[in-house]
Amino acid sequence: MARTYEHPEPEDVSLPRVLFALSDPVRLEMVRTLAERGPVNSIELGPGMPKSTVTHHTRILREAGVTKTSPEGRSCWISLRRDLMESKFSGLLEAVLNAESDDA
Amino acid sequence: MARTYEHPEPEDVSLPRVLFALSDPVRLEMVRTLAERGPVNSIELGPGMPKSTVTHHTRILREAGVTKTSPEGRSCWISLRRDLMESKFSGLLEAVLNAESDDA
Repeated sequence: MARTYEHPEPEDVSLPRVLFALSDPVRLEMVRTLAERGPVNSIELGPGMPKSTVTHHTRILREAGVTKTSPEGRSCWISLRRDLMESKFSGLLEAVLNAESDDA
Repeated sequence: MARTYEHPEPEDVSLPRVLFALSDPVRLEMVRTLAERGPVNSIELGPGMPKSTVTHHTRILREAGVTKTSPEGRSCWISLRRDLMESKFSGLLEAVLNAESDDA
């Protein structure tokens, strides 16, 4: 049976939860990778990390509404929910991504 | 002896920590109040809240670099470090404040 992943409806996506999901260096790097590369196989999001760590972080991003997880065979593809973020919190994701670029 | 409050230097202000400071509904409301009203006596930031709760939240905002705390007699004035936020994370605070307005 295919795994399924729950995603919040747009009206349930809240700013505090999105900000919390983004408030971790590992998850910020994941979001930046997704912004640069588009949908990515989840194993590529945490190079060198235990799978459980990757799953932990991708789950927080997904449950906050920041990302979408799509199972495909034994893999998961992760993508940014850019349209949702932009419609709910205009300019936020861009500001976060730009700030991160400046830090690096 | 006057109380002193430590504030991070601009180079020590980090995006994850700022996002975490903003990831709480109480602190978001405090930031919105400060954005609307300018410097505010700390007791006005948490109407009806225990002083210890107000102190807890204003401390997280201050230590992240989001706000400045200035003691004055027995009071504390809190203000947003808007210039610092804008120079480090251009557009972030505005996006957060706009999103909050939409929610309300």
